[in-house]
Amino acid sequence: MAAEQDPEGRAAERPLLTDLYQATMALGYWRAGRAREPAEFELFFRRCPFGGAFALAAGLRDCLRFLHAFRLQDADVQFLASVLPPDTDPAFFEHLRSLDCSGVTVRALPEGSLALPSVPLLQVSGPLLVVQLLETPLLCLVSYASLIATNAARLRLIAGPEKRLLEMGLRRAQGPNGGLTASTYSYLGGFDASSNVLAGQLRGVPVAGTLAHSFVTSFSGTEVPPDPMLAPAAGGGPRVDLVACVEAWLERVCAHLGLGVQEPHPGERAAFVAYALAFPQAFQGLLDTYSVRRSGLPNFLAVALALGELGYRAVGVRLDSGDLLQQAQEIRAHLRTSAAQFQVPWLESVPIAVSNNIDEGELARLAQEGSEVNVIGIGTSVVTCPRQPSLGCVYKLVSVGGQPRMKLTEDPDKQTLPGSKAAFRLLGSDGSLLLDLLQLAEEPPPQAGQELRVWPRGAQASRTVRPAHVEPLLRLWVQEGQLCEPLPSLAESRAFAQLSLSLLSPAHRRLEQPELYQVALSEKLQALVARLSAGGPQ
Amino acid sequence: MAAEQDPEGRAAERPLLTDLYQATMALGYWRAGRAREPAEFELFFRRCPFGGAFALAAGLRDCLRFLHAFRLQDADVQFLASVLPPDTDPAFFEHLRSLDCSGVTVRALPEGSLALPSVPLLQVSGPLLVVQLLETPLLCLVSYASLIATNAARLRLIAGPEKRLLEMGLRRAQGPNGGLTASTYSYLGGFDASSNVLAGQLRGVPVAGTLAHSFVTSFSGTEVPPDPMLAPAAGGGPRVDLVACVEAWLERVCAHLGLGVQEPHPGERAAFVAYALAFPQAFQGLLDTYSVRRSGLPNFLAVALALGELGYRAVGVRLDSGDLLQQAQEIRAHLRTSAAQFQVPWLESVPIAVSNNIDEGELARLAQEGSEVNVIGIGTSVVTCPRQPSLGCVYKLVSVGGQPRMKLTEDPDKQTLPGSKAAFRLLGSDGSLLLDLLQLAEEPPPQAGQELRVWPRGAQASRTVRPAHVEPLLRLWVQEGQLCEPLPSLAESRAFAQLSLSLLSPAHRRLEQPELYQVALSEKLQALVARLSAGGPQ
Repeated sequence: MAAEQDPEGRAAERPLLTDLYQATMALGYWRAGRAREPAEFELFFRRCPFGGAFALAAGLRDCLRFLHAFRLQDADVQFLASVLPPDTDPAFFEHLRSLDCSGVTVRALPEGSLALPSVPLLQVSGPLLVVQLLETPLLCLVSYASLIATNAARLRLIAGPEKRLLEMGLRRAQGPNGGLTASTYSYLGGFDASSNVLAGQLRGVPVAGTLAHSFVTSFSGTEVPPDPMLAPAAGGGPRVDLVACVEAWLERVCAHLGLGVQEPHPGERAAFVAYALAFPQAFQGLLDTYSVRRSGLPNFLAVALALGELGYRAVGVRLDSGDLLQQAQEIRAHLRTSAAQFQVPWLESVPIAVSNNIDEGELARLAQEGSEVNVIGIGTSVVTCPRQPSLGCVYKLVSVGGQPRMKLTEDPDKQTLPGSKAAFRLLGSDGSLLLDLLQLAEEPPPQAGQELRVWPRGAQASRTVRPAHVEPLLRLWVQEGQLCEPLPSLAESRAFAQLSLSLLSPAHRRLEQPELYQVALSEKLQALVARLSAGGPQ
Repeated sequence: MAAEQDPEGRAAERPLLTDLYQATMALGYWRAGRAREPAEFELFFRRCPFGGAFALAAGLRDCLRFLHAFRLQDADVQFLASVLPPDTDPAFFEHLRSLDCSGVTVRALPEGSLALPSVPLLQVSGPLLVVQLLETPLLCLVSYASLIATNAARLRLIAGPEKRLLEMGLRRAQGPNGGLTASTYSYLGGFDASSNVLAGQLRGVPVAGTLAHSFVTSFSGTEVPPDPMLAPAAGGGPRVDLVACVEAWLERVCAHLGLGVQEPHPGERAAFVAYALAFPQAFQGLLDTYSVRRSGLPNFLAVALALGELGYRAVGVRLDSGDLLQQAQEIRAHLRTSAAQFQVPWLESVPIAVSNNIDEGELARLAQEGSEVNVIGIGTSVVTCPRQPSLGCVYKLVSVGGQPRMKLTEDPDKQTLPGSKAAFRLLGSDGSLLLDLLQLAEEPPPQAGQELRVWPRGAQASRTVRPAHVEPLLRLWVQEGQLCEPLPSLAESRAFAQLSLSLLSPAHRRLEQPELYQVALSEKLQALVARLSAGGPQ
């Protein structure tokens, strides 16, 4: 957790990061004498994203940080006063000044859990005015985090466990914090690393990166390195002039590849040499600035083989344009023949990294059987989630003053489930997932081995189920403002996410037209819904 | 500018908000003795977003704030040291510690300018190592800001000038900073206000908001307001029991609407009364918590008419579900008959506000001739830009050491335009836009009234053009680290954006299948491209 305690951004912690109507409602509650009335809200979504049958819960660590820091400063209260009616009772602003989250209790799905429609990701209870004010920031912190974790998990499922997946979408994010959130939660969802240095510094996400085209084009080939000498990897032995060594190798490589020695671009080669001098242990070639086959590849091979003579092994090549799969196959073939030709066995297995607008479809192609691609960098389509750029979470009042509350509305999609609830996952004897059950908090938990009658969401009739195992889903993280247990580290949550996904049956895990996983209501909860829908007493 | 000077978020100002490869390249440049070599980069996009023929430039204020604050702290350098090779020369880290933007010069399109493919939004020059490091943060700060400003401008064009447009997408943004960026630049692009209080506090964006369904559902109708008494708007006269007054009006309203007096939900009415007691000057009814026609509307009318007796005018009704256009027509009809029935003329023109997943198509429907909708709240589809969630800006090296640089590559789409450039907009005698011209910085500017030969981008042949007016597009904002002139306020940039759009011909402004606006190269720039493409000396 150490790396995560650094306060990375005040924007994320400012209590005015909220919609104005939360403040106007706060005044309304206060004026009605209800500011301190106990209330409970649930944060959930109505449909799984991307046409899939699951989502991953994420963002809790940001929520807890926000709650911990929540307190209105004088400037905040003054700003609210400037946008509320001028004759607002000053006692209201005194009340705002006194607010914090010391009365707030939070239950939530652990990060990395499977999250399903209507099952609360967060249950937030406390004084009505405060928990109302928290609506927008909590939605903002949970929705995108869960969306991108889910998106990353899908991409990981497509890529399979072996490919190394890099998130590199900072420049495509909605500003700095969007990028930080994306890097953090795409890692949680199953990526291996991020290009985003700040995510490394603040969140402990592994970071990765080598060089861009601008580095290559900045060299013309006339530059003279101030110190072209490189010592052998093992430490002993005389230093070698890498430039000269590369030029010697270039002739042999060009002869092998059937190229003229003038064809490879000298600026590109100078850039590779400069990079190799700075990173002899971690040399990677970016091959497509000029021509992959006539320039990038021979220049890479010359530098890699020169480094090899000194005992260094190049760590990879990278492609950022064109048909990535086909080029990877061709490059692997050249690496193989060169490895044989020059008797440098490690050369044939140099990792091939690719990037360039890779979406789910292209990723599937790159991950197909026999693909020679090893590392896949994804930017835009992991960060912006173009297939569904918002999860559409909502935060709904479920009880106030101990009484259940329900939004009835004429749009059945927007009806809510009333009452303070508990959630359980019911499993079969083989550990398979049967369904998620929502029931009233006051009900006894379902018992393993006992049959119970439930009402699946969206179905017209009840059914029975006999779970072999029962797991409670929601954990108490914050009680009356006090953290009850430390959050797992990001890496632990990442491992938990992969475990969660592995429990889903293939039919549920399938990314297109999956079988929907059932969420069901207990008989008591179903009866409450029916009573309130019929206009019974709230 | 006062409101904008508040440092709203450290995340936006941290120099490690960058891709790791910027740091590895920095070491490469430094090791090659090139850290301080003068270099210039251009930030631009290749295609206008959303299938349109224009974009709006935005994000410059965030870039300048970032540059001003740019300096690596000890902790930043230590983190970089932890991810760079362990034997890296300590002098490199000393160099990093000394970095700032005092050698950086920035030319840019003013915010709110029309921005076109290949025309730089930013030109950034300075020491190679520093201006390379700035790539990712500048892309991050400009791309989304320009995308959402453009998206907002499109929505404004669809809505027309009269409808009031509210951005309310904070909860759908990529975390806190995404939301803040969205609110700021959707206002710049033409929205009237945002729900995001932080955008009001930090950026001076007008904020708006009233109440949500949770406020309504939190009341059952059994609550007793601690003080139901309300003084008349004019100040004189005795205070009146608003609850009693509303109940009296409810009977008359229900009789008029043909409803039983028990039909309107008592909790909804209690919520409306509570809100009216807090906001007698700004009462708005959210009508769709239970049933618009049988509950929301009569409750609203009862409260509005009771307030009206005291001299207060309700400011609106709001709908958040169902067929918004049709309901608005029905509600307006009811408002008209009620205004006549109760002889309260202002009631018929109470603004109708709507929201609920409004996209470009639905907005066009709501803005059609005869629509009774006055205020339109848009969240997801303004903030996430679902039609194209990323602008795809790039930041490319165009010169180093005074020599032009070009990325050739086998993908013609990814080729760049070399050399330090100037950009001009050429206009006809009637002020119409002819084309945007890119030329080398060393060339004399085009002269009004003189014919010149240009090479339109994407065309195979040159053409001539005789501009009646010539406007330089890029302004010098920062010279060697010093701000040259203050930025316009956000409201001024917003006005400039609307002016910019008004100059576009309808054929270019059209949102679907518009005529593309031409960007052309000067003969000298075209010749340089040809020379470098043919492998001539760089």
